[in-house]
Amino acid sequence: MDLSDSPGRHEGEAAEAVSGTGDGPAPLLIEATRGAMVESRHQVSYAVSDVEGRIVRHGGDIEGPVYARSAIKPLQALALVESGAAEAFGLGDAEIALACASHNAEPRHVETVLAWLARIGCTPDDLECGPQMPARQADAAALLRGGGKPGPEHNNCSGKHSGFLSVARHLGHPTAGYIRYEHPVQQRVLGLLESMTGLDLSDAPRGVDGCGIPVIGIPLGNMALAMARLGDPGDQPEPRQAACARIRRAMAAEPFMVAGSGRFCTEIMTVTGERAQIKTGAEGVYCGTLPDLGLGIALKAADGAGRAATVAMGRLLVELQAITAEEAERLGDVLTPPVLNRAGRRVGELRAKSI
Amino acid sequence: MDLSDSPGRHEGEAAEAVSGTGDGPAPLLIEATRGAMVESRHQVSYAVSDVEGRIVRHGGDIEGPVYARSAIKPLQALALVESGAAEAFGLGDAEIALACASHNAEPRHVETVLAWLARIGCTPDDLECGPQMPARQADAAALLRGGGKPGPEHNNCSGKHSGFLSVARHLGHPTAGYIRYEHPVQQRVLGLLESMTGLDLSDAPRGVDGCGIPVIGIPLGNMALAMARLGDPGDQPEPRQAACARIRRAMAAEPFMVAGSGRFCTEIMTVTGERAQIKTGAEGVYCGTLPDLGLGIALKAADGAGRAATVAMGRLLVELQAITAEEAERLGDVLTPPVLNRAGRRVGELRAKSI
Repeated sequence: MDLSDSPGRHEGEAAEAVSGTGDGPAPLLIEATRGAMVESRHQVSYAVSDVEGRIVRHGGDIEGPVYARSAIKPLQALALVESGAAEAFGLGDAEIALACASHNAEPRHVETVLAWLARIGCTPDDLECGPQMPARQADAAALLRGGGKPGPEHNNCSGKHSGFLSVARHLGHPTAGYIRYEHPVQQRVLGLLESMTGLDLSDAPRGVDGCGIPVIGIPLGNMALAMARLGDPGDQPEPRQAACARIRRAMAAEPFMVAGSGRFCTEIMTVTGERAQIKTGAEGVYCGTLPDLGLGIALKAADGAGRAATVAMGRLLVELQAITAEEAERLGDVLTPPVLNRAGRRVGELRAKSI
Repeated sequence: MDLSDSPGRHEGEAAEAVSGTGDGPAPLLIEATRGAMVESRHQVSYAVSDVEGRIVRHGGDIEGPVYARSAIKPLQALALVESGAAEAFGLGDAEIALACASHNAEPRHVETVLAWLARIGCTPDDLECGPQMPARQADAAALLRGGGKPGPEHNNCSGKHSGFLSVARHLGHPTAGYIRYEHPVQQRVLGLLESMTGLDLSDAPRGVDGCGIPVIGIPLGNMALAMARLGDPGDQPEPRQAACARIRRAMAAEPFMVAGSGRFCTEIMTVTGERAQIKTGAEGVYCGTLPDLGLGIALKAADGAGRAATVAMGRLLVELQAITAEEAERLGDVLTPPVLNRAGRRVGELRAKSI
C-alpha cells in the first residue's frame, strides 16, 4: 500500500485502527519527573515508514496535517543541490549542512553564512528571516559585549535562507520576496515536497513559519515516507538520487553545522554518522532518515514541546537499533536528559515510557 | 463538604465524577493556531474553590498531586508577614510584592532586592537560588555590555529568597541552608501550606524547585481552597487574616513587582487591582484569589506549558467575571496572545476553547 493513495495506513490494519481517535496504537508518553513524582506529561505521535510507504511502526494520529517546521529542512535543501546552485557556487559540506540546519549561531555557523552570502553576491540584508539572539549564553554575551546586536545572520534558519537565495541567484529569479508562497523558489520547494511525500499539497492547510517561509500541513505518515526516500531514493530519478546522497553526506560529515554544541541533532549524528540523519523542528517535530534500514521517521509532540520530541526521537532510534545498546549507554544523558535547577543540581529527568 | 476531608469533590457529585480518569468535566483545551490550522494543543486541569472547600467549577484531574512551583509564592510569603519579620525590617508593598514574585530582573526589581538584603544584613552571596539571566533582552544586554554577569539577585525568585532570609534573621535561625526541607524556615512554610490547604503534607511527594527550595505535591482542589482562604481568611486566626490582607494589598499596589513589563500577572493585576491577585508558576501552573467573590483558582497544564496556563487563567477570570467584558476587550492580546514570527509578523494565536 502506498501512502500517496492512503496516508498513514498500516498494511493489513483496518482503516479505523490508525485514525488517531483512540483505537490505534497509543502515542508515545514522555514524562518529566521531579523528585518523587512525574511533574508533566507529553504525548508524541510518530510514524516510521519504509520507502514503499508501508508504515512499519506508529502511534497516535499520523493522518492529520502537521506543520513539519524546520524538521524537513533536509528535504527543502534538495532544491539547492538539484537546481545546480550548490555546484555552481562551489558549496561544500559545511554550507549544505547549514542549509539543513537550525543552528546555534555559534561563531563558525555565522562566519560560514556570511562568507556564503558574499559568494553569491548577497549580504545579510537580503535575508528575510528576521533577527535572533544566538542560542548559547556565551555567544550572546560576546556579541553584546562587543557592542553588536543580533541580525538575520544569527537566525537559526540563516543557512536555509542562504540556500534559498542561492537558488534564486542561480536560476535568475529576483531575491526579494523569496520567502513568499508564490515565489518560484518556494514553488520549487513545494513541488519537491509533493514528490517526496506522494501528496498533492496545493490544497493543504498552510501558514507562515517563524522565519517567514510557508509551512504546509502534511500527515506524519507521509513525512516519514519522504524521509525514507531521502535515505534510500532508489525509485527516484537520477538527479534526485544524487541530491539525496549529497545532503546525507553533508549532514553526516558536518553534524556541528546542523545544530551546534550540546544539541541533540549534533550529538546523535556525531555517533551515527552515515547511519542516521535527524533534524528537529519547532513545536515538537522531529524527522529522521535511516539509509541502511531504508526507513524514515516523523514525529510530533501534540503540545509542541521540543523536549518531548527529542526524547521520543532518541527512544525510536534505540528501538529501531539505529543506535546500538553500547552507543546508547555512551550517550547517557543525551537520551534521558536531566532536569536541572538554576544552581545546576539534578532534580529530575525526562524519559520515555515503553512503546 | 470540606476538601481537607475529601479533596476535589464537588458537592452533590458522585465521587467518580471528579476522579480525573475521564468521567468528570474535561480539562480546558488551549490551542496554538498557525495560519489555516491548529498546530499544537494543551490540556489544562483547573479547580475553583470557595472558602469552605466547595469546588464550584473544575475540569480534568484535580485530585492528583501537582507541584505548585512559584504559583503559591503568595502563600509562602505569609511566613514573612506572620512571623513579624516584614514589620521588624520595615518592609513595604514593594518588598512584600517581590516576596510573591517571579520577576523579570528589571532594574527596579534588582535594586529593591539589593537594598532589602542590605537592610537585613545580608548580601547576594547569602541567596541560595542560583544565578539567572534577566528575562528581557534589553536588561540582559545592558548587564553584559556593562561587563556584568547574572547573579542570584537576578534570579526570578530572589524576592522570595530575600523573604526567607528575613524570616531566618528575624527568628534567629542560621541563614545558611535556608532552602533545605529540614530548615526551620521551610518547616514553617510547610506548616502554613498545611493549614491553608487543609492537608497533612508530611507524606506528600516532594522534590526540589528550580530555585532550590522544596516543592510539595498538592491536589489542585486543595490549592484552590488555599487561594480562596488567602482572599477571604474570615475563618482563620486574626494574625493570619492580617497577613493575608497585607499580602493581597501589596500585590494589588505593586503589580509590576510581582512580574514585570509585559508579563501576564502584571498586566492583569494592573486592571483588576484588589479584585484579583494571580501568580504564575513553572511547568504550567497558575493560582489566583478573588477576594470579592470568595473564590480561589488553581490550574495546571498537563504538559507544563506556561503559554497554556496563562491563556487558561485569562479565560477563567473572564468566565468568573473577575474581569469585566469591557476590561477583557481592553486587554485584547493579553488574553489571546498572538503567535509572532521572528520578523514580528502575527502568524497565529493562542486561544481557549469554550469551557
